[in-house]
Amino acid sequence: MKEKVLLAFSGGLDTSFCAMYLAQEKGYEVHTAVANTGGFSEDELKVIEDKAFRLGAKSHVALDVTQEYYEKSIKYMVFGNVLRNGTYPISVSSERIFQAIAIINYAKEIGADYVAHGSTGAGNDQVRFDLTFDVLAPGIKILTPTRDMVLTREYEIDYLKKHGFVADFTKMEYSINKGLWGTSIGGKETLKSEQTLPEEAYPSQIEKQGEENVTIEFLNGEITAINGAKQENKVLLINQLESIANKYGIGRDMHIGDTIIGIKGRVGFEAAAPLLIINAHKMLEKHTLTKWQQYWKDQLGNWYGMFLHEAQYLEPVMRDIEQFLQSSQQNVTGKVIIKLRPYSYTLVGVESPFDLMKTDFGEYGEVNRAWSADDVKGFTKILGNQMKIYYNVQKRNDK
Amino acid sequence: MKEKVLLAFSGGLDTSFCAMYLAQEKGYEVHTAVANTGGFSEDELKVIEDKAFRLGAKSHVALDVTQEYYEKSIKYMVFGNVLRNGTYPISVSSERIFQAIAIINYAKEIGADYVAHGSTGAGNDQVRFDLTFDVLAPGIKILTPTRDMVLTREYEIDYLKKHGFVADFTKMEYSINKGLWGTSIGGKETLKSEQTLPEEAYPSQIEKQGEENVTIEFLNGEITAINGAKQENKVLLINQLESIANKYGIGRDMHIGDTIIGIKGRVGFEAAAPLLIINAHKMLEKHTLTKWQQYWKDQLGNWYGMFLHEAQYLEPVMRDIEQFLQSSQQNVTGKVIIKLRPYSYTLVGVESPFDLMKTDFGEYGEVNRAWSADDVKGFTKILGNQMKIYYNVQKRNDK
Amino acid sequence: MKEKVLLAFSGGLDTSFCAMYLAQEKGYEVHTAVANTGGFSEDELKVIEDKAFRLGAKSHVALDVTQEYYEKSIKYMVFGNVLRNGTYPISVSSERIFQAIAIINYAKEIGADYVAHGSTGAGNDQVRFDLTFDVLAPGIKILTPTRDMVLTREYEIDYLKKHGFVADFTKMEYSINKGLWGTSIGGKETLKSEQTLPEEAYPSQIEKQGEENVTIEFLNGEITAINGAKQENKVLLINQLESIANKYGIGRDMHIGDTIIGIKGRVGFEAAAPLLIINAHKMLEKHTLTKWQQYWKDQLGNWYGMFLHEAQYLEPVMRDIEQFLQSSQQNVTGKVIIKLRPYSYTLVGVESPFDLMKTDFGEYGEVNRAWSADDVKGFTKILGNQMKIYYNVQKRNDK
Amino acid sequence: MKEKVLLAFSGGLDTSFCAMYLAQEKGYEVHTAVANTGGFSEDELKVIEDKAFRLGAKSHVALDVTQEYYEKSIKYMVFGNVLRNGTYPISVSSERIFQAIAIINYAKEIGADYVAHGSTGAGNDQVRFDLTFDVLAPGIKILTPTRDMVLTREYEIDYLKKHGFVADFTKMEYSINKGLWGTSIGGKETLKSEQTLPEEAYPSQIEKQGEENVTIEFLNGEITAINGAKQENKVLLINQLESIANKYGIGRDMHIGDTIIGIKGRVGFEAAAPLLIINAHKMLEKHTLTKWQQYWKDQLGNWYGMFLHEAQYLEPVMRDIEQFLQSSQQNVTGKVIIKLRPYSYTLVGVESPFDLMKTDFGEYGEVNRAWSADDVKGFTKILGNQMKIYYNVQKRNDK
Repeated sequence: MKEKVLLAFSGGLDTSFCAMYLAQEKGYEVHTAVANTGGFSEDELKVIEDKAFRLGAKSHVALDVTQEYYEKSIKYMVFGNVLRNGTYPISVSSERIFQAIAIINYAKEIGADYVAHGSTGAGNDQVRFDLTFDVLAPGIKILTPTRDMVLTREYEIDYLKKHGFVADFTKMEYSINKGLWGTSIGGKETLKSEQTLPEEAYPSQIEKQGEENVTIEFLNGEITAINGAKQENKVLLINQLESIANKYGIGRDMHIGDTIIGIKGRVGFEAAAPLLIINAHKMLEKHTLTKWQQYWKDQLGNWYGMFLHEAQYLEPVMRDIEQFLQSSQQNVTGKVIIKLRPYSYTLVGVESPFDLMKTDFGEYGEVNRAWSADDVKGFTKILGNQMKIYYNVQKRNDK
Repeated sequence: MKEKVLLAFSGGLDTSFCAMYLAQEKGYEVHTAVANTGGFSEDELKVIEDKAFRLGAKSHVALDVTQEYYEKSIKYMVFGNVLRNGTYPISVSSERIFQAIAIINYAKEIGADYVAHGSTGAGNDQVRFDLTFDVLAPGIKILTPTRDMVLTREYEIDYLKKHGFVADFTKMEYSINKGLWGTSIGGKETLKSEQTLPEEAYPSQIEKQGEENVTIEFLNGEITAINGAKQENKVLLINQLESIANKYGIGRDMHIGDTIIGIKGRVGFEAAAPLLIINAHKMLEKHTLTKWQQYWKDQLGNWYGMFLHEAQYLEPVMRDIEQFLQSSQQNVTGKVIIKLRPYSYTLVGVESPFDLMKTDFGEYGEVNRAWSADDVKGFTKILGNQMKIYYNVQKRNDK
Repeated sequence: MKEKVLLAFSGGLDTSFCAMYLAQEKGYEVHTAVANTGGFSEDELKVIEDKAFRLGAKSHVALDVTQEYYEKSIKYMVFGNVLRNGTYPISVSSERIFQAIAIINYAKEIGADYVAHGSTGAGNDQVRFDLTFDVLAPGIKILTPTRDMVLTREYEIDYLKKHGFVADFTKMEYSINKGLWGTSIGGKETLKSEQTLPEEAYPSQIEKQGEENVTIEFLNGEITAINGAKQENKVLLINQLESIANKYGIGRDMHIGDTIIGIKGRVGFEAAAPLLIINAHKMLEKHTLTKWQQYWKDQLGNWYGMFLHEAQYLEPVMRDIEQFLQSSQQNVTGKVIIKLRPYSYTLVGVESPFDLMKTDFGEYGEVNRAWSADDVKGFTKILGNQMKIYYNVQKRNDK
Repeated sequence: MKEKVLLAFSGGLDTSFCAMYLAQEKGYEVHTAVANTGGFSEDELKVIEDKAFRLGAKSHVALDVTQEYYEKSIKYMVFGNVLRNGTYPISVSSERIFQAIAIINYAKEIGADYVAHGSTGAGNDQVRFDLTFDVLAPGIKILTPTRDMVLTREYEIDYLKKHGFVADFTKMEYSINKGLWGTSIGGKETLKSEQTLPEEAYPSQIEKQGEENVTIEFLNGEITAINGAKQENKVLLINQLESIANKYGIGRDMHIGDTIIGIKGRVGFEAAAPLLIINAHKMLEKHTLTKWQQYWKDQLGNWYGMFLHEAQYLEPVMRDIEQFLQSSQQNVTGKVIIKLRPYSYTLVGVESPFDLMKTDFGEYGEVNRAWSADDVKGFTKILGNQMKIYYNVQKRNDK
């Protein structure tokens, strides 16, 4: 009886090669699965399925984990205002984790002996797949033919052609990865340090001029409506906001990061909805959270993003951080108004019943009612106590 | 013999009232000083001096601490990429500290019995002045007539008029504070949460369309040239960059922060040069620092900014943090190219001899030379060890 | 009709004076309440009640919040391994907060116009009471006659005597504060820096020699049994452990801390049970938590302790931290064996089903089964990647 | 011509096998070096040298890096109060790094083609050697015969005997590693979780009863005298203190840590001098540093210890942290008195000209002179402002 392999399959050149190679050369019974976290349309999934069977897959399945990806990752990235290195919303890279989880769980379900993926040996994705597979199913061995053999595109295309599989594998100028939480763009300029991507490299082009207001509503830190229209399905809300904002070329930037394997990497991205949601959310928090809630959220959100990016999603500390973040969102409820224009946007303001600026006690810049000038004098005197003592002791010793 | 007061004097309504009130009603010998951290032009300083003498000052002096302010504050704010709450370059508020230090040192020099300032009882500045004065000269008492008496503008104007002093104290729609490291704009919209400032509230208006490239050069973290023109004087470089960039309306935003006295405050600002310098510097660091250097710089830079903002500049921990920041800048040398356009800008790229992307060992996204696929597999296996053990133990207990 | 005051009453000299002074001189209707967090015995409470009525209290009540104090504070201090400055279990000082909460809630219940306490102007307790009262009932005014009038002991005793109240107010050599979570001892040596407390200053004296083993059991981070005897009531467990261990003089130390008002303070304490519980708990965590769970627990536990100590228990961030800590305790279950001897103890070992040392994958110091020498080589190579690149770039520039 | 190997040689079984194996089986020209960081006596070094030549070493050298180890590591560990997981002074493990650095530098000096070490595949030391070698000399290949071949002790002894080398390689019950900064003890009980080491497993036995006072003097954070006797050589001071204190069995404990490769490890240690120095230093800091200096030193010292332990000494962030730590020590000058007794000690007190308890402004627990009751009331009111607003807003929404 043949041994079973489950191959994480995207229909690209590498995984197409893997499918055929594992079946033909290695004699495995190859099953394929594509884990969709929101990056694939129905049509694209159909194309992938067709390819899988043409390449000899014994079975193929599309695992839809989009809602799970929102619930277990995007939600917390918003709570934590996660922008890696201050810019990157951890777009596609966070999806990999949930794809890996879906794949390995399905592998266990069908009793696979092996699980295979098509990552190369240079990037972060190999670590995300290997580690997640190994932690969740240490008994299932991992196969990565393309990484192990270090093949050229030409070799792979030739091999597939020889075995009767023909498809359009034209190398694009840029490698584009589309996902629910943003699209990454790599190639040419991103391989060096000096240039940014040209306008035309971005999937979305600027289609609108002038200004347009959009409002985002939050309930306990989660988005609930765009422009006043409530919608239970958060995935739809994200897509809706993306299609409004990407016409302005908003949310484009370059991420220069430290890969898990220690080298620097540079990648362009466009992520209009993630950027707007996170920055609107953050502004709402400035109005509704205390200073120290914000301080600790910054620390923990930053770590959460780093670990998520670096394949450590399954670390138990991540569950502890999620509980902190969840707890902090109790009052993060209200509406944020944003003004969009080509290339940029302005956070106009917020309306929230929990706005700490709306107090009965005193307002910034106005003569206030809840404390006196003497209170502030006393406060300042005591606040300076330790420094005063320090300088006093210092002076005594300087003599 | 009359007791001596040194009054921190800006020529505004509050300090004008203080000058006359302290001399006439309290019978002090009033000396005035304006501490310039780069916000006043020669002409403005002349006007201030004239006012001082007309109000009855026994002596007046302009203390220029602009270079000191750069050396002791701006430099470290750039090293630390300090943006309070992710947006605000601590513009005018950091200047207050160096003004307070200059004032209190001068008070000691002239043997003043008192030091006076015109801050009201609602904001952060009173704490900055009181605390700095009290720590550096606990023996000199602090006078704040306008804070103590809670006077209206009308009362102050009347009082001055009655005593023969006439000046144009028309209340502006917005209260504008101009400084070397940015201009803050308060009033109307900033007193509530829902609206942002209108276009015309900003001192600089958009005068240029289209795109323009600018380059900023850094040596060990400090700016050394704009568009290739070297300049020793950092203050001139900041002013030069500001005058290039503010024609595009860059660096405008709203700061929503927690004041030292615990209430929320909202203030608009424009700070084109600070934003460009900090973000260019940060990008250069992404290329030249290790991941953990960036991690700890984030923590310490954030704290440094918070404490600077909150009148804790004299805390000894600030000196320790400065040593960390200074040490981290050893390799932050190179050129950053930025593309300006109305309302926004793009960080195009960097050129640096210390760029960690330029390595002989392996490049991101390419098949590399310094390690093998097996190395990464081993790495990932060991990296996942503790999680694997954790899930193994977990499963054993779930049974 | 007389205005109502609720006085936080301990029966000591200061609060006795307050009771009589507020009734006789100020004409208030004085109600007294003692909030017991475990520091008072039934007999002591009876004595306090008698005193209250003899001093003219209209009503008196003992509010027992011991269980609440455990549930809302001790539990989290154990989860967070809270030892202020690495030594002090925040003994009595954390109780003050829960006493203050109980008092102010009772004040609201009886419709008091004022709430009074007997803290002096030099320590932390005044801030704990004032702040908690003010936050939870901004409408109820706070009275503190002893603080405001700065009275001597002699004056207070005389005053009480003149008004017919006689009690034994002999000044003890040391001021002792007994509580469920430890006893603090202040006076003489603690007022200077050079000496420690003499043996006889400690309430508990060494009564046992030789060695004795004790075991503490934990379930999800909470104590459940001492020496194998299960007990639902955690307060009883703490008392039981204290009475076993204080016969060895364990848990004595000196806390040198920064008071809320910025000055340094020094206080002795004995807290055998808290020290044993916290250190046993911490060792159990070393076996059952991952490295990064411990890392973040350290950060958050430290902050939690600082804020609890500094009267910030009501800060919302404390609730968020509690959620993190709670989440982290899922596997902190098992038994810890401790060997007691005079003045010190040894943590012998732990038994836990969640012990991460008990793995099927590999054991420390032994040739292992789950990875190969090559895996570690690969791991190390990749782990060193960024440093290697850094030194490579450095060398290139040094030339 | 034979290729040159430099072998890090300790004279133990593993490195003895390596020496002979590399010369005889692999045909290399074997040079040996022992890097002494204070753990070897002159006699021991002589024995090691003899063994080296008897095993066929072409040359042998003892590299004394004890002073360098103090200057570059112990000093900062004291500044940072580094105790891993709150207990372990990173004894022998930090020495490995400086041994590795000395070895690799010597390898470069003699133009070695290879560098070899005898670590096994289960512990931390292999990572420390591999990584340090690889970072500092990426061109020199690393050989680890014992790790690669996974040999038994018997096999190695037999092999050596067959090749005419006889030595006493009796396996000790415990594996002992002696160093300047402590001695680690592994074996038997440390391989499991439940038991601690028996009394007799410790190299030092309790030889003294009763109590004895010892004083340690610090200048800018560094030890300068024991019991009043000044001594420039810090290494001698450490040894002197160790020989006083280890007669009391002080500084014994068990470290349960996370190894670099992710598994838990347990090891006993005795380190009387390190524990006394660090805890005395920490107490001196409690008197001389501000609260926030201590707070940040805790964070950075903890990280420094973790990275030092985990072979990351060469990370550039370590140099930045060292600058912070150095800066913080400016006032850490004074004398600490400690009382020793069997198994434990008491920190009696400190004398320091920089003691912040000695102030002209006010003393803890006493009615003070520098501020009034009203100042503290004002302070507390303002300190509670944000919480008060928060609860106010909360209540408004609860209705």
